[in-house]
Amino acid sequence: MTAHSLQKAPTGKDIMDAQSRIASFIHKTPVFTSKAFDAMSNKSCLLKGEHLQKTGAFKARGAMNAVLIHRDSAQVSGFITHSSGNHGAALSWAAEQIGAPAYIVMPSNAPQAKIDAVKEYGGLITFCDPTLEARELTAAELQRSTGALFIHPYDNYDVIAGQATATLELLQEHPDLEWLFIPVGGGGLLAGASLANYYFGKAKVVGCEPSNADDAYKSFISKTRVSVKTPNTIADGLRTSLGVRNFPIILDHVNDIILLSEEELENAWHICLSRTKQFIEPSAASGIAAALKHQSTGKAGIMLCGGNMNTSQFALR
Amino acid sequence: MTAHSLQKAPTGKDIMDAQSRIASFIHKTPVFTSKAFDAMSNKSCLLKGEHLQKTGAFKARGAMNAVLIHRDSAQVSGFITHSSGNHGAALSWAAEQIGAPAYIVMPSNAPQAKIDAVKEYGGLITFCDPTLEARELTAAELQRSTGALFIHPYDNYDVIAGQATATLELLQEHPDLEWLFIPVGGGGLLAGASLANYYFGKAKVVGCEPSNADDAYKSFISKTRVSVKTPNTIADGLRTSLGVRNFPIILDHVNDIILLSEEELENAWHICLSRTKQFIEPSAASGIAAALKHQSTGKAGIMLCGGNMNTSQFALR
Repeated sequence: MTAHSLQKAPTGKDIMDAQSRIASFIHKTPVFTSKAFDAMSNKSCLLKGEHLQKTGAFKARGAMNAVLIHRDSAQVSGFITHSSGNHGAALSWAAEQIGAPAYIVMPSNAPQAKIDAVKEYGGLITFCDPTLEARELTAAELQRSTGALFIHPYDNYDVIAGQATATLELLQEHPDLEWLFIPVGGGGLLAGASLANYYFGKAKVVGCEPSNADDAYKSFISKTRVSVKTPNTIADGLRTSLGVRNFPIILDHVNDIILLSEEELENAWHICLSRTKQFIEPSAASGIAAALKHQSTGKAGIMLCGGNMNTSQFALR
Repeated sequence: MTAHSLQKAPTGKDIMDAQSRIASFIHKTPVFTSKAFDAMSNKSCLLKGEHLQKTGAFKARGAMNAVLIHRDSAQVSGFITHSSGNHGAALSWAAEQIGAPAYIVMPSNAPQAKIDAVKEYGGLITFCDPTLEARELTAAELQRSTGALFIHPYDNYDVIAGQATATLELLQEHPDLEWLFIPVGGGGLLAGASLANYYFGKAKVVGCEPSNADDAYKSFISKTRVSVKTPNTIADGLRTSLGVRNFPIILDHVNDIILLSEEELENAWHICLSRTKQFIEPSAASGIAAALKHQSTGKAGIMLCGGNMNTSQFALR
């Protein structure tokens, strides 16, 4: 099968192809349930454990799909990104699977835990000043000198198709889901989930966003893409603003976006820890917080998008 | 099948019977693996997730087995224990499954989280002064007034047979295990594990104990049961001393007992959290700490015995 990079929003077939393409590399993640949580949320909830995915986040799916699509291209001699979050580690891991180099541009003030994660998966780090301009300039220079291909963390149809497979996997096991609660940052996961549901499900899709990073909510309401400068939320994976390619998909296929306070996110994180014993990152708590807040009943899927956070502040003694 | 309370150490058949008896009530728990942890421990490790068991601990197995064995006895009109830990919650839950009352004697200074857990499963709490004498006296009085049966948390063969099913379940999936790392407090889990391995496995069994609560180690070395007064360890589930019935089983069927410092326990807890995303109680970290410390290679089973701890000290903001 010769694969081509997608030039428009993924179709149902594109998502199925992505699933087959990445199947031997990624984990089919388990689903967690809790009677106590069902009682609290007044729903029957299925928590999709993407925090147990390779590299600790759903990002492995999109990165692997993009890398495999470009594997056979003679022009590609590696991959580049300037994400310092889960995508940087995921792209490093995905490139390593096919023996290609991954060049990760990171700000000089990136947390040690994120630097370590990229290094662990063999990513080659180039540090730059902590400004967007410096990151883009450094990535462009690297691209010229290495011939490597830039893979955007979310504003990329191949990545969106890969992220869609998390929801497809859940819908294949539970086609009767009535609600999907999906965290939204740049919109790769939410765009993918809403497309997977459009083609293979019948749920209403609810984007879950911190009130302190409410660009997707504002964009969704006004139908005009807006961004939020320096959002201040514990959900570090959701601080980014919607991508150009992600926004129209979300407008077309998402039913609602719900905003969560920092208190609601922290409460949801604790409930997840105590009730399911699953350690998730604060971004992943947004789906749980939304399911608790949303006035609805029925069978709901909640995407636990990742589990990467520093644990050093959790002292036992 | 008429069941009789066991009067001696469980045989292989007793353990198999316990497994059948409790099967429809308990979870068959998942096993977690981590390549990074395998590299750190120089072993191929299978982490048995009893923190995902009903009531959040393996204790549900032993309590359920004891309760079911006594279900049909006309003399029994409920169950009593004075454990304020996981056994109190487990016995409450097990009794609730058959519609029997569970009377739990708790010290007046018991933590709110433990009180809440017992209440959640329908346990009827009687508070007493925080001394062993008061607890035993209160339990004896309750026994007289209610006709309920006292179920010891670990010094009870029916309970030991129930706990053995956790290891049996692991051995049925992985009969080639070479090592078993099992936490030891009162010795219900370790006695059960060592018997299950004696009848159905071929592993070497290593008991895992905090240095600050080293009664099992001292007893094992001296072949004389000793106890430790007021042990000071974060592994609250392992503060108890070995039971009368547990000690000879452990002497006969356990190969070694390894001691872990508080630092080693805390480090193992963090590794489990970051590498497997599983939230366990500090007692369960002892198996992980032991696998990291023990100079051995091969295929190892590690019992994650429980996941009940207060999360309120884990602030995200």
